[in-house]
Amino acid sequence: MTKVTAQVSVSVDGFYAGPRFDGDGDWMASAESAGFFRVTRWVTEGMAWRERQGFAGGEQDTNSEVIAETFAAAGAYVMGRRMADGGEVPWGDEPPFRAPVFVVTHRPRARVERKGGTSFTYVTDGVAAAVERARAVAGDRNVAVAGGGSLVRQVLAAGLLDELELHVVPVVLGSGLRLLDADLGLGEKEGIELTPTRVISTPEVTHIRYAVHGRAPLLLDDRGRGGGATTIIS
Amino acid sequence: MTKVTAQVSVSVDGFYAGPRFDGDGDWMASAESAGFFRVTRWVTEGMAWRERQGFAGGEQDTNSEVIAETFAAAGAYVMGRRMADGGEVPWGDEPPFRAPVFVVTHRPRARVERKGGTSFTYVTDGVAAAVERARAVAGDRNVAVAGGGSLVRQVLAAGLLDELELHVVPVVLGSGLRLLDADLGLGEKEGIELTPTRVISTPEVTHIRYAVHGRAPLLLDDRGRGGGATTIIS
Repeated sequence: MTKVTAQVSVSVDGFYAGPRFDGDGDWMASAESAGFFRVTRWVTEGMAWRERQGFAGGEQDTNSEVIAETFAAAGAYVMGRRMADGGEVPWGDEPPFRAPVFVVTHRPRARVERKGGTSFTYVTDGVAAAVERARAVAGDRNVAVAGGGSLVRQVLAAGLLDELELHVVPVVLGSGLRLLDADLGLGEKEGIELTPTRVISTPEVTHIRYAVHGRAPLLLDDRGRGGGATTIIS
Repeated sequence: MTKVTAQVSVSVDGFYAGPRFDGDGDWMASAESAGFFRVTRWVTEGMAWRERQGFAGGEQDTNSEVIAETFAAAGAYVMGRRMADGGEVPWGDEPPFRAPVFVVTHRPRARVERKGGTSFTYVTDGVAAAVERARAVAGDRNVAVAGGGSLVRQVLAAGLLDELELHVVPVVLGSGLRLLDADLGLGEKEGIELTPTRVISTPEVTHIRYAVHGRAPLLLDDRGRGGGATTIIS
């Protein structure tokens, strides 16, 4: 059965890129880029990713297996407009998706066909509509929310996300584009409950897959009697 | 050899408590408390913690073993003033630390002796001095930075932290007191590099222990060629 999933590489402090670059200069030289490439280094070094890019070499290891599995599981993608615009040139004639991509945007644009099975369809009637259109063509594979972070938050906040996999990279960035922030719109004493369903640890990254159960009230559990638990939490 | 360590229970989005409660009302009824008790539930349900509190029952499981190990490893504690004030009443005559605690404060106060081996010494000459005083009495055990978050950040930013263990609880809180935030004072294109040294996964919490290597520049790795990696990151 098709699940709606998202996979995000983040720093220990939750950033998927450095501070947002909005200038006309060289994105590759920006702090946003520096943070982005630090948290995705395990990806760019992975053979399974490099093969799809047409790059030589790469590591054939557990991390590469996670990448291959992630590609294989996706029958269709949903993507934010900024990411689609940023990727259009570097992805070139044969993008790595090899599946239909539905881009959430306010700007109507004709469908774009690329080699290798990738197409870009521009959806102007919202995130839920884009997810449904992706689901309709994903077959028995999953709908992967490719990002950026704002789109992942919208899908999560709307209760449309079934599975979130965080690839937690052992670096503290201190600032940048944060995956999970206040615009989730949670109420006071309300959380989104998850369950970890798979954890794979390597020196480069800790892969934590969560099933998403949705919003729930934070019930007061006062067995801690206030400060007691602070012997091991901060 | 003595290490300076910190152990923090955090939500998936990095909060160790809900939004800060500064009122005169009931902290236990606050959103700060609701978030705090959600991320420490695995602790308050652990037999190893309940025993030290004099509470009956509790789970004797992997999480409880992590708690017992954490208590056993600490030869002395460093603590922030707000946490020490908040805990003074609930901890009572026999606090759960059973070791010397050095409280970082601007307010001089006489040393307090409690039953069971816990004492509170109030240090007014800064975080580094408090860590050194704790190290001097920790023997061959560790100095545990008990929190709050601001103190952990100060110790980390000062390069004094050898090991950080995050107990990542599968809930998204959306807002609250964040362990790792901008006041780490990292430069642009600078990070704090870590290495995961142990990961223990349970349904209630994922325990990730990191060795802290310190500040390092974020070197641009452009093998990602811009957008390509976004097929599996967001």
